[in-house]
Amino acid sequence: MSKVQSPWIRTVSLNPPSLQDNTADADRLIRALKSELKTEAIDIDPALLKTLPDSLRKWEYKAGCILFKDRYRWLLTGVIQDVDSNPVVGLAVDLGTTRVALGLLDLKTGRPIAESVFDNPQESVGPDILTRVHHAGRPEGLKALNALIISGLNRAIAKLCRSCKVKAQDIHAVTIAGNTVMTHLFMGLNPYWIIREPYIPVVNKPGIMHSRTLGLRANPQARVLIFPNVGSYFGGDLIAGILFSGLYRDDKTAILVDVGTNAEVVVGNRNWLMACAGAAGPALESGAARIGTTAGPGVIDKIAIHPNSQEFEIHTIEDLPARGICGSGVIDLAAQLFLAGMIDIRGKLVPQVCGKRLKAVSGIAHLVVVSAGQSATGEDLTFSQVDLDSLIRSKAAMYTILRTITASVGVSFNELERFYVAGTFGSFINPGSAITIGMLPDLPLERYIVLGNSSLAGAILALQSHKSLEEIDRIRDHITYMELNVNQEFMNRFSAAKFLPHTDPARFPSVKVNVRQKDKPQ
Amino acid sequence: MSKVQSPWIRTVSLNPPSLQDNTADADRLIRALKSELKTEAIDIDPALLKTLPDSLRKWEYKAGCILFKDRYRWLLTGVIQDVDSNPVVGLAVDLGTTRVALGLLDLKTGRPIAESVFDNPQESVGPDILTRVHHAGRPEGLKALNALIISGLNRAIAKLCRSCKVKAQDIHAVTIAGNTVMTHLFMGLNPYWIIREPYIPVVNKPGIMHSRTLGLRANPQARVLIFPNVGSYFGGDLIAGILFSGLYRDDKTAILVDVGTNAEVVVGNRNWLMACAGAAGPALESGAARIGTTAGPGVIDKIAIHPNSQEFEIHTIEDLPARGICGSGVIDLAAQLFLAGMIDIRGKLVPQVCGKRLKAVSGIAHLVVVSAGQSATGEDLTFSQVDLDSLIRSKAAMYTILRTITASVGVSFNELERFYVAGTFGSFINPGSAITIGMLPDLPLERYIVLGNSSLAGAILALQSHKSLEEIDRIRDHITYMELNVNQEFMNRFSAAKFLPHTDPARFPSVKVNVRQKDKPQ
Repeated sequence: MSKVQSPWIRTVSLNPPSLQDNTADADRLIRALKSELKTEAIDIDPALLKTLPDSLRKWEYKAGCILFKDRYRWLLTGVIQDVDSNPVVGLAVDLGTTRVALGLLDLKTGRPIAESVFDNPQESVGPDILTRVHHAGRPEGLKALNALIISGLNRAIAKLCRSCKVKAQDIHAVTIAGNTVMTHLFMGLNPYWIIREPYIPVVNKPGIMHSRTLGLRANPQARVLIFPNVGSYFGGDLIAGILFSGLYRDDKTAILVDVGTNAEVVVGNRNWLMACAGAAGPALESGAARIGTTAGPGVIDKIAIHPNSQEFEIHTIEDLPARGICGSGVIDLAAQLFLAGMIDIRGKLVPQVCGKRLKAVSGIAHLVVVSAGQSATGEDLTFSQVDLDSLIRSKAAMYTILRTITASVGVSFNELERFYVAGTFGSFINPGSAITIGMLPDLPLERYIVLGNSSLAGAILALQSHKSLEEIDRIRDHITYMELNVNQEFMNRFSAAKFLPHTDPARFPSVKVNVRQKDKPQ
Repeated sequence: MSKVQSPWIRTVSLNPPSLQDNTADADRLIRALKSELKTEAIDIDPALLKTLPDSLRKWEYKAGCILFKDRYRWLLTGVIQDVDSNPVVGLAVDLGTTRVALGLLDLKTGRPIAESVFDNPQESVGPDILTRVHHAGRPEGLKALNALIISGLNRAIAKLCRSCKVKAQDIHAVTIAGNTVMTHLFMGLNPYWIIREPYIPVVNKPGIMHSRTLGLRANPQARVLIFPNVGSYFGGDLIAGILFSGLYRDDKTAILVDVGTNAEVVVGNRNWLMACAGAAGPALESGAARIGTTAGPGVIDKIAIHPNSQEFEIHTIEDLPARGICGSGVIDLAAQLFLAGMIDIRGKLVPQVCGKRLKAVSGIAHLVVVSAGQSATGEDLTFSQVDLDSLIRSKAAMYTILRTITASVGVSFNELERFYVAGTFGSFINPGSAITIGMLPDLPLERYIVLGNSSLAGAILALQSHKSLEEIDRIRDHITYMELNVNQEFMNRFSAAKFLPHTDPARFPSVKVNVRQKDKPQ
């Protein structure tokens, strides 16, 4: 017998029809599934009816049934002969503005099989959301953007399936988590009003759609669960992250910070969820994620600076000669520079301490991180005062947002039992370094949990339980979205946070600057 | 304001979006409909999302919403600017083997607008169900049969819409009632197993489908309710008839007889329904409906014979010269011949009484109903002993089926408070004549209610209430289908019923043969 224990798959053996029991094939199958699932609410996809009678007879009235569940009922979306010898897979997608991540999992066991990532082909239209929204307003623009993402996905699906030796036909369920604009473009919906006051999406809860309607390369009857959004700036990717973190289930209050192109924050527990997005504040517009190179071979991801000798200990991905610094490397670098006294509390490079590592390019101070002789490019790998200023604005905005949202619900940082860090940038962040520069609050390190790509992880999780849609709706409906009001109080907090780690060192008791006294600028 | 009082149409005025209420357009509309319909279960057809934002803004957030209801939820399937100035129509279809009838109604008021009928184009493949089922098994046969009925319907829809000055796009809901095979061919499902023991349809309860999936010329989002069947021989047309008759709602027991190509019977009340179909008995195979011509101009539909002079008083449709006799005319003729003593209790023509009206053709006695000089064809219009024998077998089968089904539930004919006669043939039947020949039981004439095309009427009714699907399911699930067992008891009853009106005259006290004594054959 089958050992499959899946929420989506049932093997049923039917009594063959007889003159005494002439129930139709479809209704006979549904009757067995009702008893198996203990529910009265099951529908069959009409497309299955064409082949069902012959299949049932060939299989001697034993069939593997693939189901999905929407808000109201179970849906029979696939029928196969034998569950054990046929692959039944699910596809989870994190629909990022820049990168799209795919996860394939075995629906029988719920186990992930493979993942892949590709650059969002809509980048050919424009790297940022705004450009794409404007393009969608042009004749054929929306169609083109939709075709780009669908065909990109279909190519990636084909490749991923090949690598796992499954067919696209074997994909029987799909989940899509993405920001509000990306999700709209994926569905072929015009995001025109999303970016115009008062910022209204076409739909908050798209629910379940058909893969064939969307044009996805999957089983044509596969249902596609599209994560809902709370509004223009709080998308399904974040709902997926909240689902994955589990913070909506906990009694204790926790916070989730997603640092990607924007910074989105949600704080709460099983009773309430308060959310805001950094895009509402102008300070993060030149966001932290833009500093540094995309992680890859030869990119610096960790840096230590010896407090006395100021010697740099540099780690690159795959230990290759350095060719750039990624986001997490930048935060490490700033933290280490600060601890070594090479930048002051305003974030300015201190010539007396930096010494020979400083050089001026077009009148702007640059710190040589790796010299030309040792870099992969044959040129000095530098980090300028402009880069530093930008990083400091970003970290100040982040800290200000965190203070603002927690203050709005009367929760102090210390009451946060868990601090989840998510997102493409957040994945690699060293919380210790982020605390040192005053980007994240000074909590015990064990409270920080780095989630990685929580959007993809949430999309995968949604394929592992038939209660997912229910939970996703619950999360979405529990969220109170707070527009970040960039008022005087916000600006005061922001100004204070532009220092390293902060104007009020009592907020960061764990941050000890080794050489501060000696080289403090006057 | 709109005076529309429809179960399917609602006009809602939304609060325009604001920074304080940034709910998406679709969710804003659904929210208003939830409050209007007092339900939490509403979904929007995703196809509406593409144009919704612009429409809502153009219409200043006031919209006419067209809804449908399936078993689990309401479905928003259309959005229009102004209910009063836009036609919103529904289409009801009786999908007959021979004839297809269409009814168009105004969904705003529930009032029928127009009807039309066309010959089922599948007749080009074969006039009877069996031929078509066999054809469906050939390569491309099913596809061809499906295309024939869909294109035939689409032509008829276009014509009907033109005549009412509405567009096919304005058809927002469709109901289809037909026998089990016709319904399967309409859905593109192979009826192969329906005619093979143990006679299993692909599906009993197709539920709600999409007009665009079916290829119907209607609004692409229009939902199509397909009446369920109880089995191979008890189709959706009969369920529609039961819905229209209302017998499933009455406390008192009633019977419904549908005399079309086959004879189907249902007896019951609000608590139970027992059904059987004449096709299960071999006696009706050369069914009553095959005798006589299809009703039309010049066809005899009523006949009276003067009891003493044996003069024929003939009525033709549109009072044109006679060119044939329709089914109801045949029953009238047999009844009058019997009352005038021109046929005996065995149904044999009595030469002594018929006199000059008799002639022999190839050795078979023929009664001249209209002589060559007066007929439309210039030839004698005759009714032969073979026709009579066939009619008597059919009427005997009908009476036997009625006795068998009522006996099976322990109900005597006299306990039947209502006797509904339906079907293309039943529409024109004169219950008095049918009683005279012993086809129908001898009940007071006021208990007989001739329903006409009850399948179309039921399909129309289903468009007038949002509880229809619920009621249809209830009817279908209440029905106990009885296989007619052609055993010795059945055959004994059948033999007794082959006399006019019956071997036991006490069963037909109202039937008085005027000249029986005088001309009784010895």
